[in-house]
Amino acid sequence: MHARFHAPAAERTGDVVELPHDEAQHLVRVLRLKVGAAVRIFNGRGAEFDGVVAKASKDGARVRVEQSRAAVPEARVAVTLAQAVLKGDKMDDIVRDAVMMGVAAIQPLVTARTEIALAALGRGHRRERWQRIAVSSSKQCGRAVVPAVLEPRTFTDASEALWDQAREATSGSALPGLLCVEPTASADVISMGDLESAPPLASTIIVGPEGGWTAAEITAGSSACRLVTLGPRTLRADAMAIIALTALLTRWREL
Amino acid sequence: MHARFHAPAAERTGDVVELPHDEAQHLVRVLRLKVGAAVRIFNGRGAEFDGVVAKASKDGARVRVEQSRAAVPEARVAVTLAQAVLKGDKMDDIVRDAVMMGVAAIQPLVTARTEIALAALGRGHRRERWQRIAVSSSKQCGRAVVPAVLEPRTFTDASEALWDQAREATSGSALPGLLCVEPTASADVISMGDLESAPPLASTIIVGPEGGWTAAEITAGSSACRLVTLGPRTLRADAMAIIALTALLTRWREL
Repeated sequence: MHARFHAPAAERTGDVVELPHDEAQHLVRVLRLKVGAAVRIFNGRGAEFDGVVAKASKDGARVRVEQSRAAVPEARVAVTLAQAVLKGDKMDDIVRDAVMMGVAAIQPLVTARTEIALAALGRGHRRERWQRIAVSSSKQCGRAVVPAVLEPRTFTDASEALWDQAREATSGSALPGLLCVEPTASADVISMGDLESAPPLASTIIVGPEGGWTAAEITAGSSACRLVTLGPRTLRADAMAIIALTALLTRWREL
Repeated sequence: MHARFHAPAAERTGDVVELPHDEAQHLVRVLRLKVGAAVRIFNGRGAEFDGVVAKASKDGARVRVEQSRAAVPEARVAVTLAQAVLKGDKMDDIVRDAVMMGVAAIQPLVTARTEIALAALGRGHRRERWQRIAVSSSKQCGRAVVPAVLEPRTFTDASEALWDQAREATSGSALPGLLCVEPTASADVISMGDLESAPPLASTIIVGPEGGWTAAEITAGSSACRLVTLGPRTLRADAMAIIALTALLTRWREL
């Protein structure tokens, strides 16, 4: 298969589009492709095309957009992973895996027991790094969509936003969020198999940090979210996202 | 919570049992526990007990078995993960994750595109290493069972054994194995949601190497296994086991 590049400017056949800096570097320096080489491009918003390299030099690369191709289908339910930022580089792998599992967006969270502050995430340009990882993962897993990595926010802000959504939703509809908790966290905990098998249009699944949630967070979260558990075993914090996303997609017949 | 140790000799309250070498080292040198310290022990076959350290010295550790405790429940279906050995140390993480997901056993496989030979696995004592990782993962995830890591075998031998099982099974019952394949591998590919939601007593899920299956392997496998796929995206080889196990357990209402 031809090499695949993220070309956000590609909209229609016949366009000649500039690749972003990282993508041009990959084309020119790593793969050493020349003018005339056949490639695949996707615009990150769901469109996929054949392409031909129109310029490949140190100062950039351009691709001519050829015929459009069927893109890998996206899940019918737009899942946002709201993930507490974990220690070290673990969040990098979580972003990569979540994109591979088909999420619509990733919301990094700072919780009571998160060991890094919002300001430090900003100074370290972590969101920008995670967005680059999302592009790279979309390239590898074949998606034509690049999920947005949103600005990190506190769990309090995120759960209030979900609470507003829950209030605006028509009465009787399910709560929009799912908070992953230990089986013993509350009497109201349900398992994945207790969820409706018909998927909602959108859902947010919230995964906590290494140290887990505080009692206050579980109380705050339970007003906007259902509390779900992932079985009786103790799961590593950095494996919870891929397990939760796989379980959700299976429950909703997307796997 | 008290530290937890694997004590294979623990059978009943009142016994005083020797810990295996690695466990004794962990108790004495890492955690520096002394005689009289309260611990938890599990025998690897499903029993869990309170314990009290009865000896802790350079040449070993003994624990007195106190009252038995309720163990973390095991899944109702005994799932064997048959996993093609991946490059480098990736198999270590797969063993760790598979134990955490509740497998009954792990069968390392050598396939046509596996880059290491059976003989080399034997010389490197890889099975013994993976079995130690399984013990360590059971300790961490809270299981009282340590899944067996079986002697590595070829895919051909493993699929013939499954074919024998399929022949012996009562007519009309489902094939015992599930072979994870790309969606395009065959016209007979089913998705996880197509599996019966009632779990069998036992099942083997087979995951391939980085380079995938040969056409001959898919043909051989399909006589003893159903061909299942895990959605339209290209999954990393080292993530397939945790995704396949999570999807199976969700389908069978074990999550």
